[in-house]
Amino acid sequence: MSTAIVNPLVQEVLDLIGIFAFALSGALLAVRKRFDAVGIAVLAEVTALGGGVFRDLVIGAVPPVAFTDMQYFLTPFAAAALAFFWHPRLARIRRFVLLFDAVGLGVFCVAGTIKALNHGLHPLPAIALGAATAIGGGALRDVLAGDVPALLHPESEIYAVPALVGSSLVALLAVLHDLTPLTAALAALAVRLLALRYGWRAPLARGVSSR
Amino acid sequence: MSTAIVNPLVQEVLDLIGIFAFALSGALLAVRKRFDAVGIAVLAEVTALGGGVFRDLVIGAVPPVAFTDMQYFLTPFAAAALAFFWHPRLARIRRFVLLFDAVGLGVFCVAGTIKALNHGLHPLPAIALGAATAIGGGALRDVLAGDVPALLHPESEIYAVPALVGSSLVALLAVLHDLTPLTAALAALAVRLLALRYGWRAPLARGVSSR
Amino acid sequence: MSTAIVNPLVQEVLDLIGIFAFALSGALLAVRKRFDAVGIAVLAEVTALGGGVFRDLVIGAVPPVAFTDMQYFLTPFAAAALAFFWHPRLARIRRFVLLFDAVGLGVFCVAGTIKALNHGLHPLPAIALGAATAIGGGALRDVLAGDVPALLHPESEIYAVPALVGSSLVALLAVLHDLTPLTAALAALAVRLLALRYGWRAPLARGVSSR
Repeated sequence: MSTAIVNPLVQEVLDLIGIFAFALSGALLAVRKRFDAVGIAVLAEVTALGGGVFRDLVIGAVPPVAFTDMQYFLTPFAAAALAFFWHPRLARIRRFVLLFDAVGLGVFCVAGTIKALNHGLHPLPAIALGAATAIGGGALRDVLAGDVPALLHPESEIYAVPALVGSSLVALLAVLHDLTPLTAALAALAVRLLALRYGWRAPLARGVSSR
Repeated sequence: MSTAIVNPLVQEVLDLIGIFAFALSGALLAVRKRFDAVGIAVLAEVTALGGGVFRDLVIGAVPPVAFTDMQYFLTPFAAAALAFFWHPRLARIRRFVLLFDAVGLGVFCVAGTIKALNHGLHPLPAIALGAATAIGGGALRDVLAGDVPALLHPESEIYAVPALVGSSLVALLAVLHDLTPLTAALAALAVRLLALRYGWRAPLARGVSSR
Repeated sequence: MSTAIVNPLVQEVLDLIGIFAFALSGALLAVRKRFDAVGIAVLAEVTALGGGVFRDLVIGAVPPVAFTDMQYFLTPFAAAALAFFWHPRLARIRRFVLLFDAVGLGVFCVAGTIKALNHGLHPLPAIALGAATAIGGGALRDVLAGDVPALLHPESEIYAVPALVGSSLVALLAVLHDLTPLTAALAALAVRLLALRYGWRAPLARGVSSR
């Protein structure tokens, strides 16, 4: 159900963009906290993959995709290397990082909700798990770095709420999608009844009189 | 084995009381830390469901019940809403919160130990997992809020020790329950031997002489 | 594959030494942080078993061995008791603790990588999971105690890098081991070609002329 909402290739490309963006946010925080190269790599991996690993453990999809798909595993290292060598320049393009981070948030909450629905979760827990996929890595990043997770703070509306909106929309579409035959039947019935009531007619060929 | 120690309906009602009490403790801590509405809801969910999710992942019962039973998932939101709107009044009834929290602790360590035993764990790890179910959510709550978990501090005797006592008692009862036929046979043998040794006799009908 | 790299009994003894050493490091940190007896026991258990529980959850080996093998579960209590009663003397033998800790690190990264390979992970994620097994418990210990994990700090080279080296070596050996027939065939071919090229000959019996 609902796997075909997004084309698999598009999905994978978006996934990797999301992972890269999250990894970059983790690596830049590590640089700011004066962690060493190992700390930068660890925080990049944890931020990018933490939410997805939690999701996969919860739905029983083990080993988690982060440990089976090499692209998922290697992408954060690229982000860590970037932060390690070019972090002064990256700080200037912080706006782009925030943009990527938003892309990651959007991709992850959608992908997480779809995967949860595909594994048979009810829509409401699927929404929660989708949102957890999107915000889990960042929460783990902040705890490891010794901060209180940003999503708990008053500025969190810009973070947790969009994730919940995205997840909810996916779940709603999936439910409607499952109800397509019924929805279509009801829509057809309604149009027919309205047509009868108001005398709607299909347009005739030009020049042909309805009489 | 030992599933029937507690009536399922009673168990579920107690479970929900425990979840509500734990969620309330998380939500009130979030209010005290000046987290926003999202932070209050997240901390309520994590505190109430964290221990159970860990238990279910460890015994392989995926998806965890917190993601399949809607009552488990929605109850913490009720507690979060209560804390959001009535927290000054709740502070006054802090004694009741502590009472509920104790109920939650008792219910969770018992339920966790029973579930672990039912999944084939040995009694000793089952006790540990039962206690972890009861104290795990609170530990996660404290770490996310930036505190060292209360259970590690000297005042923890009022917390971890009762959980361990409850879990141990359940495991002991379960082991004895499994040994019922043997226990009964040994008891019968012992009584018979003692009766032979000391000439015990069952009372006769009134007025009937033993001669 | 590759399970026979280490004799099972040797493996188990090394495992328990590693668990004991990690538990001791957790218990001593708890003493230094003025936690009570419960806190000492909890931190010893979490430090010793945390990495292995994460590894087992990721590869789907549930319940984790920490909850099925009583030795794994009881060993940290012995370390906790030791730290509780003799911590002033233990502080003096801190060098031995560091030595044991290094043994634990070595054993855990090897055991974790082998177990991950046996469960069908690719070599690269197996290396990561092996390293996570070795450093996960310590990271959890530090977060629970309110510290930033030592492995993120500049002094981490003495910690995370050896774990990665050990894991990588195991994975390399395992890959080579799997390729043994091919490797042997190629080696034989190469020797034969070199022998033909340079006119190598096996030594003849003493006194026998090659002509």
